[in-house]
Amino acid sequence: MSLFPNVPKIQYEGRGSKNPFAFKHYNPQEVVLGKTMEEHLRFAVAYWHTFVASGTDPFGVGTAVRSWDSLSPMDKAKARVEANFELMEKLNIPFYCFHDVDVAPEGATLAESFKNLDTIVALLKDNMKSTGKKLLWNTANLFTNPRYVHGAGTTNNADVFAYSAATIKKGLEVGKELGAANYVFWGGREGYESLLNTDMKLELDNLGRLLHMAVDYAKEIGFDAQFLIEPKPKEPTKHQYDFDAATTLAFLQNYGLKEHFKLNIEANHATLAGHTFEHELHVARINGVLGSIDANQGDVLLGWDTDEFPTDLYTTTLAMYEILKNGGLGRGGVNFDAKVRRSSFDDEDLFFAHIAGMDSYARGLKAAAKLVEERVLDEIVERRYRSFQEGIGADIVSGKATLASLEAYALQNNPIRNESGRLEQIRATVNEIIFSV
Amino acid sequence: MSLFPNVPKIQYEGRGSKNPFAFKHYNPQEVVLGKTMEEHLRFAVAYWHTFVASGTDPFGVGTAVRSWDSLSPMDKAKARVEANFELMEKLNIPFYCFHDVDVAPEGATLAESFKNLDTIVALLKDNMKSTGKKLLWNTANLFTNPRYVHGAGTTNNADVFAYSAATIKKGLEVGKELGAANYVFWGGREGYESLLNTDMKLELDNLGRLLHMAVDYAKEIGFDAQFLIEPKPKEPTKHQYDFDAATTLAFLQNYGLKEHFKLNIEANHATLAGHTFEHELHVARINGVLGSIDANQGDVLLGWDTDEFPTDLYTTTLAMYEILKNGGLGRGGVNFDAKVRRSSFDDEDLFFAHIAGMDSYARGLKAAAKLVEERVLDEIVERRYRSFQEGIGADIVSGKATLASLEAYALQNNPIRNESGRLEQIRATVNEIIFSV
Amino acid sequence: MSLFPNVPKIQYEGRGSKNPFAFKHYNPQEVVLGKTMEEHLRFAVAYWHTFVASGTDPFGVGTAVRSWDSLSPMDKAKARVEANFELMEKLNIPFYCFHDVDVAPEGATLAESFKNLDTIVALLKDNMKSTGKKLLWNTANLFTNPRYVHGAGTTNNADVFAYSAATIKKGLEVGKELGAANYVFWGGREGYESLLNTDMKLELDNLGRLLHMAVDYAKEIGFDAQFLIEPKPKEPTKHQYDFDAATTLAFLQNYGLKEHFKLNIEANHATLAGHTFEHELHVARINGVLGSIDANQGDVLLGWDTDEFPTDLYTTTLAMYEILKNGGLGRGGVNFDAKVRRSSFDDEDLFFAHIAGMDSYARGLKAAAKLVEERVLDEIVERRYRSFQEGIGADIVSGKATLASLEAYALQNNPIRNESGRLEQIRATVNEIIFSV
Amino acid sequence: MSLFPNVPKIQYEGRGSKNPFAFKHYNPQEVVLGKTMEEHLRFAVAYWHTFVASGTDPFGVGTAVRSWDSLSPMDKAKARVEANFELMEKLNIPFYCFHDVDVAPEGATLAESFKNLDTIVALLKDNMKSTGKKLLWNTANLFTNPRYVHGAGTTNNADVFAYSAATIKKGLEVGKELGAANYVFWGGREGYESLLNTDMKLELDNLGRLLHMAVDYAKEIGFDAQFLIEPKPKEPTKHQYDFDAATTLAFLQNYGLKEHFKLNIEANHATLAGHTFEHELHVARINGVLGSIDANQGDVLLGWDTDEFPTDLYTTTLAMYEILKNGGLGRGGVNFDAKVRRSSFDDEDLFFAHIAGMDSYARGLKAAAKLVEERVLDEIVERRYRSFQEGIGADIVSGKATLASLEAYALQNNPIRNESGRLEQIRATVNEIIFSV
Repeated sequence: MSLFPNVPKIQYEGRGSKNPFAFKHYNPQEVVLGKTMEEHLRFAVAYWHTFVASGTDPFGVGTAVRSWDSLSPMDKAKARVEANFELMEKLNIPFYCFHDVDVAPEGATLAESFKNLDTIVALLKDNMKSTGKKLLWNTANLFTNPRYVHGAGTTNNADVFAYSAATIKKGLEVGKELGAANYVFWGGREGYESLLNTDMKLELDNLGRLLHMAVDYAKEIGFDAQFLIEPKPKEPTKHQYDFDAATTLAFLQNYGLKEHFKLNIEANHATLAGHTFEHELHVARINGVLGSIDANQGDVLLGWDTDEFPTDLYTTTLAMYEILKNGGLGRGGVNFDAKVRRSSFDDEDLFFAHIAGMDSYARGLKAAAKLVEERVLDEIVERRYRSFQEGIGADIVSGKATLASLEAYALQNNPIRNESGRLEQIRATVNEIIFSV
Repeated sequence: MSLFPNVPKIQYEGRGSKNPFAFKHYNPQEVVLGKTMEEHLRFAVAYWHTFVASGTDPFGVGTAVRSWDSLSPMDKAKARVEANFELMEKLNIPFYCFHDVDVAPEGATLAESFKNLDTIVALLKDNMKSTGKKLLWNTANLFTNPRYVHGAGTTNNADVFAYSAATIKKGLEVGKELGAANYVFWGGREGYESLLNTDMKLELDNLGRLLHMAVDYAKEIGFDAQFLIEPKPKEPTKHQYDFDAATTLAFLQNYGLKEHFKLNIEANHATLAGHTFEHELHVARINGVLGSIDANQGDVLLGWDTDEFPTDLYTTTLAMYEILKNGGLGRGGVNFDAKVRRSSFDDEDLFFAHIAGMDSYARGLKAAAKLVEERVLDEIVERRYRSFQEGIGADIVSGKATLASLEAYALQNNPIRNESGRLEQIRATVNEIIFSV
Repeated sequence: MSLFPNVPKIQYEGRGSKNPFAFKHYNPQEVVLGKTMEEHLRFAVAYWHTFVASGTDPFGVGTAVRSWDSLSPMDKAKARVEANFELMEKLNIPFYCFHDVDVAPEGATLAESFKNLDTIVALLKDNMKSTGKKLLWNTANLFTNPRYVHGAGTTNNADVFAYSAATIKKGLEVGKELGAANYVFWGGREGYESLLNTDMKLELDNLGRLLHMAVDYAKEIGFDAQFLIEPKPKEPTKHQYDFDAATTLAFLQNYGLKEHFKLNIEANHATLAGHTFEHELHVARINGVLGSIDANQGDVLLGWDTDEFPTDLYTTTLAMYEILKNGGLGRGGVNFDAKVRRSSFDDEDLFFAHIAGMDSYARGLKAAAKLVEERVLDEIVERRYRSFQEGIGADIVSGKATLASLEAYALQNNPIRNESGRLEQIRATVNEIIFSV
Repeated sequence: MSLFPNVPKIQYEGRGSKNPFAFKHYNPQEVVLGKTMEEHLRFAVAYWHTFVASGTDPFGVGTAVRSWDSLSPMDKAKARVEANFELMEKLNIPFYCFHDVDVAPEGATLAESFKNLDTIVALLKDNMKSTGKKLLWNTANLFTNPRYVHGAGTTNNADVFAYSAATIKKGLEVGKELGAANYVFWGGREGYESLLNTDMKLELDNLGRLLHMAVDYAKEIGFDAQFLIEPKPKEPTKHQYDFDAATTLAFLQNYGLKEHFKLNIEANHATLAGHTFEHELHVARINGVLGSIDANQGDVLLGWDTDEFPTDLYTTTLAMYEILKNGGLGRGGVNFDAKVRRSSFDDEDLFFAHIAGMDSYARGLKAAAKLVEERVLDEIVERRYRSFQEGIGADIVSGKATLASLEAYALQNNPIRNESGRLEQIRATVNEIIFSV
C-alpha cells in the first residue's frame, strides 16, 4: 500500500522537461570526474523534517496533513517507516538520517523509550535489507524534551547528564545495529542563555568527558562509524559552544578529541555564524575534518534557521567544489536537513522540494567539476601565490627565513609591486562556468 | 607651551559634580578589593584615535581641527608627542599605546621610515623618563599602506611578507627600547576578500611562521613583553582569520603558539563577531589567555566598527567582573581604543570622552567588586551546579563514570527534576547592584 | 482558592530590600511630575505569555508546569481567568490584554468558537466588576490556526478573508462588552514568504479594506476604543507589511486610515527592524500616533523575537522619556508583552519577571522625569538648533526663503562655523541622571 | 590621446568567448520584448566610483594608480572628463552620472566652487555634443565636506542649510545646462547620530522645505528632469531619514511631495535595510514611484555598503523583472553605483568590472523577459488569487462586503480549504528559466 499514491517514481528526463515529477539534472549513473553522480552526492533524507515536522513555527501550529496523523504513536511510527522507504525509493535516494525520537515515541521511562526504539529499529532493519537503502547517520535527540532545558552534556544537573549518556549509548548501539556510516553530535542545548548563571568551564569539561565516553564505548562495541560534530552558533540557545568550524576545532584540540571526530557542516548554520557555507567547508577541509554536510539554505536577511531546501546554484557549486577538492565526503553524504515551507503543506511538496534540492546539487556538482577540470581557480591561485615558489618566498615557506634575514632583504627591495586580485573578472568567469553546465 | 590650553587638570570631584572637567567616579587612589583603582584599571591612551584620527568616514573627510594640522610631517609628529604627554598628565592616565606609523611618518623607503621612527622614539623615551608615563603596548601598522592590499603576513607577495617581517622586527626593538609591557598583533589585512582567489592554508601557515619568527627574535634580543593577538571578525577584510577568541585559540594551538600569546579583547570586535564583550573575555579567561582589553563600544544595530568611548555600565561592569575573576590583567591594561564622534571635533571632546570612559570603567569596577565581594553570582553558580559535587555528578567529573554506568543509573532514576534558572530575578539583582555603587 | 499559593501579595519595600517578592522601585502612589506612578505607567499583563505560553521553542516542547495543565479545554480556560485576576491583584497591575484564542478554546466551527468565547467573556466581565481590573486592549489572533497559513487580511483565499473579518467583528463586540480602552491589530501573517507567488498590491488593498470595515463597524456599534496597529518587520513571515512605524504610517496615509489609528510600539519589534525602541517611539510621537507600548526587550545579537522582560534601564528611561514628552500614553499603557525564559519554568518566575519589569519601568520613569524636570536634553536641543530662531534660519522655517535668497546669503557668508555635538559628554550626563534615581 | 591605451573597444562576442575584453551577453542592438537591450538597460557610469575613488577604506589609503594622479586639481578634473568619455565610448555606455564635487574641485569659497564647476561643465557639454553621450542624472554632494558634519537639509546650523540650498540651486542649473534626464537627492548626512541631541521634527520639516524649494526652482527655470530620492537606512549616519522605499514614501506623502518625486533604488541600500533589492523595486513600482536604479550588490554577511559590481544573476533577473513589469524605467536607467575592489587597482579592472556588470544585467534582462513572455509568475499569481475574482472575493474587492456580511458568510462556510504555495517548485522553475538564457 502506498502512502504517496499520487506520486510516481521520479526519473531523469533532462533539462527542458516540464514534468514536475522528473529530475532535470540529477542523473544518478552519469559519470562526472570518474565517478557516478550517485557516488559523488550520496544523498540522504532527513527523517525529522520529512516525516515528523508538521509546519509549526513560533506563531503557528502545524499545517501539514499527512495520512498518518490520526494514528496512535506506535502505529504512526510504523507508518513513517513505510513512508521513508517509499519516498527514498521514488526519489532514488540511497541514504537516510534520524534522531532516536524521530523514529520511535518516547515512553514514560527510559526503559520504555528503549523498548519502543528497539521495535522500530527492527522494522527499519527489515526495510533496509529488502530495499538496500542505508543509514548515513543516526543520533540522539538531546534537545526537545524538557529535561534538557539546561543542557544535556552541558547541563547543571548530573541526572540529566546521566540520562543523556544513556541515550547516546543506546544511539551507538542502534547505529551499530543498522550499520550507520556515521554518528552525529549536534548540541542543540549545549550552550548558555546567560553567562550570569553559567559555569562555562565545567560545562565544556563535562562535554569533553561525554564525548570521550562515547569514543570509548564505540570502540568497546566495535562500532566503527565516523563520529561527526555539527557546529551551530545559536538557536535555540543564545550561544552554542560549537559556534562554527573554527570554534569546534579549538574544542576538539583542547580536549584531545580531534583524531576521533570530523565535522558535519550545515549551510544555514554557517550563515547564522556570519560565514558562507563554502567558508566553513573550506576551514574543515584544510584542517582535515570535513566529514559530511547538511544541505539546506537560509535566508541571509533573517536571523533564524529557516532550513530551506537548497536551490541557490552559486552555493551548491562552491560547496561541491570544496567537496571535490576534499576528494569527496568519504563516509559522509549530502543530507537534506531541510523542510518544506509551512505553506507547502501537501505530500507532493515533499517530492518537489527534494527534486529541487537534488537537481540543484547535481548542477553544482557539474559546475564544480568543470572548475576542477579546467583548473580555473587552481590556476588563479597558483599564479597569485607564485612568489612563494622561489627566492625569498621559498625561504619563508621552508622555514629558513628569520626576521633579520627578511629585514636585510626588505631594506634593499624597493619599491614593492603588487598585482591586481582581479576579483570582478573572476566572478564573471565563474558565472560563465556555473551557468554553462 | 600647552597644546590644550583650555583644558585644566582633571580631578576627582565625586558624584554630583557639575564640572564637565572632573571625574565623578574615577578616584585613582581609592582602594577597591585591596588595590587602588589605578592599579586595577591601568588606563591607556590610544595614540592613533586621539592624536592622529581626524574624523573621516567612508563618506566624509576629517572634521577635527588640531593645532598641529598645518605642520610638516616630522614637526607634526613631534607636536603629537607633546600632546600625548600633556593629555596623559591632565587625565592622570599612566599608559599609552601606538602603532609605528601613528608616531612617525613613513619615509620613501623602509630605511627612511626607520630613521623617522628612531627620532620620535628617542623623544618618546625622554618624555616617558620625565613624566613617568609608560608604554602599555606598541605594534606595527600592517594595514594602512597600499602594499598591504593583499595582506601582510598572509599576503600572496613574498616581498610584502619580508617587508612586514622587517617592520615587526623594528617594532620589537622599539618595544624593548621603550620598555613596552606588551606587544600586540592585530591582523587588519590578515584575512580574505574572496575564497575564489585565496590559498587559505598557505596564508595561515605563513602567519604561523611569522609569529614564530617574532617569538624567536624577541627572545634573542631579550624583549620580555607579553605577546598579544587581537581578534576581529571582519572589516576591513570580508573575513579575518582571527575571527574571535575561540578561532584565535584554534589557530594558536594549531601552530604551537599558545604558550607565547595571550589575547587582547576589544569590545566592538566582540559584538561584530556576534558575541558580547563579556563572552569573549570569559572564553579568554577560562583558557588562561586573557591578556589585555581594548575598551570601547559599538552600536549593535550597525554593522561596522564604531569604536565609541565606552559608557554602557552593564558592559563595563561585566567586563570588570571577568577581569577581577581573572585576578586582574597582569601586564595588560584598559586601553581606550575609541574615537570621538566625527561631530565631536573640538579638542575638549577628547577630554570629555576620556572622562566618560574612565568614569564608566571606574563604576564598572566598583559594581563588579560588589558582585565579587558579596559572591552574588558565585553563589548562584555554585548552587546551580551542586549536583556535580557528589554522587553520580562527582563520578562524572572525576572521570569514573562510563556510558554503561550512567545508563544503569539513568534507568532507575525516574523522574528527573530540574530547577528554574531564575534569569529574570538574577537580572533584577544585578540591576540593583550595578546601580547602587 | 489560590492558584499561586506560594506567592504573597507584592508590596513596595524600597531599594535595599532583599525580599524577592517585593518592589524596590515601583511605588504605585508615589507622585512623579504631578501624577502617580500608577497613572503614568498603566501596567498590563499579557494573557498569552503569562497564562498560555508553555516555554516551547523551535527545538523544544514546553517546560512550564502549571496547575491547570491537566484540565479540559474549557476548564483550563476558566482556571486561567482566575489565575489572571489573582496575579493582577498580587502584583497590583490594573490592566490586562488578550487575543480571543488566549482566553477561550477554538471550537470545531466559527459558531462554536464564538460560543466558547461568550462563556469566558462573561466570566471575565464578572471578575473585572468584582476586582476593578480593566482591559487595556483585546484583539483577534489571526495567525496561529493553519487557516491563516497564507495570511488573514492579506490571504489569497477569500474564504479566509471572510473568516478573519468575522473574527474581528466578534473581537470588536467583545471589546465593547468589556470596555476595552483600545483594540489592537498585529498582522502576524500579513506579509509574504516570497515575492515570486505574491500579489502585494492586492494584499495591501485588501488589508486597507478590512481595516476600513473595522472602523465602520466599531462606529456602528458605538465601540469607541482607540484602534492600534503594531508594527513588526518579520517573523513569522519573511517580510511583514507593517515593517516599522514609518512603513505603517505610509500604509495608513495611503489608505486614508491615519485619523483612525495610532501605533502600539514593541521594543523587540523595533530592534528586529534595525531601530532602537526610542526611535520608533519618537517617530510615532512626532507624527501624533504614539498610542501604547509593548514593553519587553530583545537580544540584539540574536535575530528573532525573544520577548524578554524589560530590565535594561537605558531603554526604559529613554522609552519613558518619549512617553512623558508625548504627554503620556492617553488610553494606552505599558503592556508586558514578555515571556519568562524557557528555563524559568516555575510559577514564581512569572512574579519575579513582572517585578523585574515593573521596577525597571518605575526607575525609567523616575530617570526620565528628572531629564524632563531639569530640561537636560531640552536645553541641549534648543541650544543646538538656535540658529533657526532668527535671521536666515527664521526665514527658512517661516517659508520665506527660496533657493535664490539662500544662495545670495551663502555666497557672502564665509566661512561657516559648526559647533561640536558633544555626544560623549551628553552620554556621561545621561549616565549620571539615570543612575542617580 | 588615450587615457586607457591598453584597453580596446569592447565588442559583443557571445557566450564562450575567452576574450576578457568582450561582452558575452550584452548585445546592444539585440531585441528583447520589442526593444533593444540598449533601450531597456540605459546603462550609466558612476563618475565618483570610476574616476574619483582611489580604493581607500576605513583602515587603508588608496591603492589605485591612475594616470591623472599627479596633476593639479583642475587639470585632474579635465583629465577625468576625457577618461569618462573614453571609457563610455569603449564600453558602449550611453549615460553617466555625477555629483558636483566629482567633476570639479571645491574652491575656497562657494563662488570659487561655482566657477570651477562652470569650467568643467562647459567641457562636459562639449564632449557630450561630440560623442552623443548623455547625462542620466547629476546631484550635489552634501556629505563629504566637514560643513555637513551635522547634516545639510537637516543640519542644526542655518548657515549650512543656506549653503546646501545654494549648491542645489547650482545643481539644478547644471542639470538644465547638460540636459540631465533626472536629478537625484541622496541624503548621506540627512539623519542622526543620536536622538539625545536631535530635533527630528524640525529636521524633517526643514528637509521638506528644502525639497519644495527645489521643486519650485526647477519649475522656475524650466528644468524638467525627473526628481529622484534615493533611500538608504544608515551609513554614514546611524539612522538616515530616507531609510527605505516605504519610509521615503511616508515622508513624501507627509510633506506633499509625492507627485514631484520618484525613487532611485540601490541594491546594496536595500540589503542594508533588511530587504531584497526586488522588494524595494516592487514597493516602489506598486506605488508608482520606481524611477531609476543604482545597480550594485552588497555582501549580505557584512554590515556596510560594499558597492560591488553586480554579478549575482538571481538579483539581476528579479530586478529586471520588476523593471519590465514597470514598463521600463522611463527617464531612469541602470547606473553602476559600484566600485572595483580595493585589490582590483588596475585601470583594466574598471573595464572588467563594467563588463561583468553589463553582462550580468543583460542576462538578467533576458531571463526576466522569458519570465514575462511565458507568464511564469503571472500564471502562478493569477491562479493563486483567483478567489477574489468572483463570489465573496469579488464582493470584498469591490467594496460591497462588510464585517457583518462576511460574518454571515463565514458562519456557514465550513471547512475552509487552502492550497499549497508550492514555493520549492517555483524556485526550481525559476532556476530553469534563469539559467537557460
